[in-house]
Amino acid sequence: MTLRLADLDREVQRSVADTRERVAALHAELPRNGLVVWTAGNVSERVAGADLFVIKPSGVSYDELDAASMVVCDLDGGKIEDGTADRLQPSSDTAAHAYVYRHMPEVGGVVHTHSPYAVAWAARAEPVPCVLTAMADEFGGDIPIGPFALIGDDSIGRGIVETLRGSRSPAVLMQNHGPFTVGKDARSAVKAAVMCEDVARTVHLSRQLGTPVPIAGPDIDRLHDRYQNVYGQRDERAEESHV
Amino acid sequence: MTLRLADLDREVQRSVADTRERVAALHAELPRNGLVVWTAGNVSERVAGADLFVIKPSGVSYDELDAASMVVCDLDGGKIEDGTADRLQPSSDTAAHAYVYRHMPEVGGVVHTHSPYAVAWAARAEPVPCVLTAMADEFGGDIPIGPFALIGDDSIGRGIVETLRGSRSPAVLMQNHGPFTVGKDARSAVKAAVMCEDVARTVHLSRQLGTPVPIAGPDIDRLHDRYQNVYGQRDERAEESHV
Amino acid sequence: MTLRLADLDREVQRSVADTRERVAALHAELPRNGLVVWTAGNVSERVAGADLFVIKPSGVSYDELDAASMVVCDLDGGKIEDGTADRLQPSSDTAAHAYVYRHMPEVGGVVHTHSPYAVAWAARAEPVPCVLTAMADEFGGDIPIGPFALIGDDSIGRGIVETLRGSRSPAVLMQNHGPFTVGKDARSAVKAAVMCEDVARTVHLSRQLGTPVPIAGPDIDRLHDRYQNVYGQRDERAEESHV
Amino acid sequence: MTLRLADLDREVQRSVADTRERVAALHAELPRNGLVVWTAGNVSERVAGADLFVIKPSGVSYDELDAASMVVCDLDGGKIEDGTADRLQPSSDTAAHAYVYRHMPEVGGVVHTHSPYAVAWAARAEPVPCVLTAMADEFGGDIPIGPFALIGDDSIGRGIVETLRGSRSPAVLMQNHGPFTVGKDARSAVKAAVMCEDVARTVHLSRQLGTPVPIAGPDIDRLHDRYQNVYGQRDERAEESHV
Repeated sequence: MTLRLADLDREVQRSVADTRERVAALHAELPRNGLVVWTAGNVSERVAGADLFVIKPSGVSYDELDAASMVVCDLDGGKIEDGTADRLQPSSDTAAHAYVYRHMPEVGGVVHTHSPYAVAWAARAEPVPCVLTAMADEFGGDIPIGPFALIGDDSIGRGIVETLRGSRSPAVLMQNHGPFTVGKDARSAVKAAVMCEDVARTVHLSRQLGTPVPIAGPDIDRLHDRYQNVYGQRDERAEESHV
Repeated sequence: MTLRLADLDREVQRSVADTRERVAALHAELPRNGLVVWTAGNVSERVAGADLFVIKPSGVSYDELDAASMVVCDLDGGKIEDGTADRLQPSSDTAAHAYVYRHMPEVGGVVHTHSPYAVAWAARAEPVPCVLTAMADEFGGDIPIGPFALIGDDSIGRGIVETLRGSRSPAVLMQNHGPFTVGKDARSAVKAAVMCEDVARTVHLSRQLGTPVPIAGPDIDRLHDRYQNVYGQRDERAEESHV
Repeated sequence: MTLRLADLDREVQRSVADTRERVAALHAELPRNGLVVWTAGNVSERVAGADLFVIKPSGVSYDELDAASMVVCDLDGGKIEDGTADRLQPSSDTAAHAYVYRHMPEVGGVVHTHSPYAVAWAARAEPVPCVLTAMADEFGGDIPIGPFALIGDDSIGRGIVETLRGSRSPAVLMQNHGPFTVGKDARSAVKAAVMCEDVARTVHLSRQLGTPVPIAGPDIDRLHDRYQNVYGQRDERAEESHV
Repeated sequence: MTLRLADLDREVQRSVADTRERVAALHAELPRNGLVVWTAGNVSERVAGADLFVIKPSGVSYDELDAASMVVCDLDGGKIEDGTADRLQPSSDTAAHAYVYRHMPEVGGVVHTHSPYAVAWAARAEPVPCVLTAMADEFGGDIPIGPFALIGDDSIGRGIVETLRGSRSPAVLMQNHGPFTVGKDARSAVKAAVMCEDVARTVHLSRQLGTPVPIAGPDIDRLHDRYQNVYGQRDERAEESHV
């Protein structure tokens, strides 16, 4: 039997509505930062106080996205009937998002894009090496490569989770496919997606004309620790840290 | 004797008017997605219920295009007199569009651009290899190269049709010239033009620093079949599939 | 004695006012097409019926340019006193523009930019080879390199004129410096600057991964002849052709 | 004891208010010119008539910056209590800006970005060679590399000052980190940051396909002298010159 939004308690319904607003608004950051073309790319966020998450509908263009068109799913990726978006199907990447939420309880937001420089590294199955202080800050080391995996079962989700667990990075580049990023909420995951493309591009450019100077491991650790604990305004400190 | 719009029956006239609106609006996607500069590039669409198509006027800038300035042609590429755009000539690529409509009845839309990464592959006469899952989804394999052909007769149209018939790709890169894409309607052909430039760029970037990992043929088939049949909203499924 | 605008006859004054409007408006195309940053780059146009031209003021940002801030010069590059822009000096490239107007009576507009791909070829003193049909159309062959020349005398202007006279191209890349383009009016010269950067970029990209296929000389001639004589709307045909 | 804005004399308070407006407005130039993503990058300016400077708050996005959110610091980088922005901490790069103001009294503005082409050279610890006339004008030679330095003490500030003192360039590329630029005021430093990325990009592109032609030292000197003394409008001449 399909779960219906109307059957959830009031507070969860309000939480779903808020999450829809946030997730719809955050989608605007993807084209704005050059991370997606056409309908590719998606943002999701876990609903506070419920085993649910909100995600982009499939095949809908960025101009037409609003809170009402966002789709609510349970943690198996099944769509919740909600009366407003019943004709819309969730993103074709929903199973991968759901797998992450089931296996990484500390994750509150997931983003997937086909941003060009990150995908260029992914197509070579080559991690982005940590040669920038900003990369040490945000990623704490290289951005790792996940396995080649076909859509249709749990392969992509499993590849994301296993790769992220072996790294401090909030981003993984799935081979031949593209980046998935995570965060404590959708905004943090979007930030990680923006920074992932930025460092993938800058290191690409640097490598085109020679070999970037590596940063020593202990210096990477010092930069990462400091950034995760000190950077940003005090009341928003959590937002800046990896989950 | 030249055909006049006023001599067509009412329903066809309405269909022409609708097509003009759609084709004019879709031209905005070309500069927005970085596919054209100045007046280069053009979109056309077959008129439902008639042996006609609507295409961009020649040498007019994107800021000045509106439904009234679109030109109506018969399938030989001859301009239909319509009283509103009589002073405007159809795009200099009209003969190529007309040839496609005459020989590919399943095609409802054609797009031509000089998008830089796609043209960079075309100038080397080198197909874009299928090394991205998004490329397997949309193109079902490599993006093929068409022959070098001069403007002025059917050479370009014939090169497009022969190359597309030997491929699952909705895009062909004409040597030293640029991409032509097709779709069930103009919107699908525009989508293919956007995706063509996107994958041409990403594979270019990946190749700059090494060799991308190939995707095995059977995996390309699986991805392509799934995408053409499952992706997108149910009521728009046809839009997402290649013609 | 300095020439004053108020001393010119009425018709010339009106012609100056019209030219100022056009030149001010065309400057917006430079940042819009990614050809300039900050205050770099300038457009000028000959005043119909007088030995004068209108040019950008020196060191003023693109946001602040309007018709009133444009500077009027005689063909020696001397500023005409006009009461509205007396505190503004003409562009530091004025002497080069003036030299072109003195020695190429068929030229009605000149543009100078530091657009990045064109300058990249200029810094290597390497012409952009004609490997694109769009380049054959517009430039009729390679885009040539002009000599290294210092600012301060006629060296730059002479280098531009001598290089353009040995070519069908409306663009010349001055070594270590950047492109200068000409046209029958300022709009044509701006179009040539936009196309120059576009082909400089596309051929750069193509060359990064191999060797573009050359286009045979007679095919370049055929494409160039056709484009200069047929392309564009009839009443604007002259605009499309090289001067 | 912390200094409070309310304890400063009236004129200084007015000067602080003006500086806040200018610094807030200039931050818009960073995303507009493609120099930053997300919250990275910062602009500061010395307050006329006081040992103070105004700088961006830490971790705040560019959309949310206004004059009120700018933070006022003394020349040791300590925050001044001001009643309007007490909950906001100054940029994590504040110590580096403060060090520059303490040791370079002629500097009135400092900018730091992670602009991609400049960072690409910085990651290879390779100066940008002076092969463009525009680069001779603005930078008077190569753009130099500063040492690798960790955040947290005076290492970054010292590295900036020592490198700038050995050069005519208003920009230094800190190794593995990114560009810092200086100027007589914040606007000049922003201009230097924009030009730094522009020439870093153009020389990168030129080097991708071969070796740019060097400009002889005496020609660099001549171009630099002329530009610093002649270019720009008379009443703004100082703005154009390096400090």
